[in-house]
Amino acid sequence: MDVKPASDRTRVRRLPKRGAYDATTIARILDAGFVCSVGTVRDGAPMVIPMLYWREDDRVYLHGSQDSRLLSALCESEACVTVTHLDGIVLARSAFHHSVNYRSVAIVGRPELVSDAAEKERALHAFVERLAPHRWKTLRPVTQKELALTKIVRMPLDESSAKVRTGPPVDDPGDLTWPCWAGVVPVTLVAGKPLPESGSESFEAPTLSLE
Amino acid sequence: MDVKPASDRTRVRRLPKRGAYDATTIARILDAGFVCSVGTVRDGAPMVIPMLYWREDDRVYLHGSQDSRLLSALCESEACVTVTHLDGIVLARSAFHHSVNYRSVAIVGRPELVSDAAEKERALHAFVERLAPHRWKTLRPVTQKELALTKIVRMPLDESSAKVRTGPPVDDPGDLTWPCWAGVVPVTLVAGKPLPESGSESFEAPTLSLE
Repeated sequence: MDVKPASDRTRVRRLPKRGAYDATTIARILDAGFVCSVGTVRDGAPMVIPMLYWREDDRVYLHGSQDSRLLSALCESEACVTVTHLDGIVLARSAFHHSVNYRSVAIVGRPELVSDAAEKERALHAFVERLAPHRWKTLRPVTQKELALTKIVRMPLDESSAKVRTGPPVDDPGDLTWPCWAGVVPVTLVAGKPLPESGSESFEAPTLSLE
Repeated sequence: MDVKPASDRTRVRRLPKRGAYDATTIARILDAGFVCSVGTVRDGAPMVIPMLYWREDDRVYLHGSQDSRLLSALCESEACVTVTHLDGIVLARSAFHHSVNYRSVAIVGRPELVSDAAEKERALHAFVERLAPHRWKTLRPVTQKELALTKIVRMPLDESSAKVRTGPPVDDPGDLTWPCWAGVVPVTLVAGKPLPESGSESFEAPTLSLE
């Protein structure tokens, strides 16, 4: 896969050894999540809104209502989309070295409106399949009115970077015999028992892909 | 608890029925998480960085290295701190009504540097206790040098709002008999088996508070 040079904006500055810029790493992190944080500038001040997203090839998509002010504003200036997965609580023997394991991606750029109806439907198809694989073909088909009510923007991954921490705590050498528990408590997002709507219990419940 | 009026910036505009502004709701959502998304403006463009946070009373704290450019920049202008928990994938009978259940809080304001050493130590104590309850007293005590190397900022919750979706999918009435599975698949962050560092296995592993 391509290894992209980091732009000046996406280069990981703090603890650069945690930075990664290859497309495979970035795609895997993006494909493990559903919710991103979208940063915009409103009246000169930053605003961060959670939104659903999905990736296809070298871009991510966001969607919302056709009259979404946020999505319109996104396409008129720069945006930053950040995705973060918490993987573990890292408990050192000193407060100072406590940390977390995580995977994150930041994407900066200018989103583009998807106006072509066929691309919109294809993108929504990909979104539903991301939420629950093999689901699209089971649904009541999408209507032209619904497509018209849905706004979709795509954001290229050209300027993106990943930041990852893995592994155990890194204690000061003099603390290694300090008498307390130290290590990592992994945390994971897991799917619970599906809660069917009345009348749909006889159909097979979907299996989510959370990783 | 207080019910605060929403400011013009924190009022939930899209689907206002999902908005909440009372301090108890906001505190509970904040206390259920570890990682926030911090939005700033850099050279006129938005930047969103994941950071650890913790809440005490009517403020959240962020921390980092004493030479963190981000934390310094935060205190020189407005910032937006957003926390989001994904609670479920909401699968409707039409693509259009797919959604997610979630809890989120957005806080806007100007962070303030915590310069007093006693307040810094007290805040770090609270942070470690948030990561793992009852842990602080078991640790190698914090040093003055470590306190000096740690930068902490606090952000008041004065301008904050919550947005929450719960419950089942809301299908069009005509779709209620469409032959497919519909409902909610809950998702939860769960703690895995603690992974102790060599030499610390004999001490009691911490129990995390993920909710």
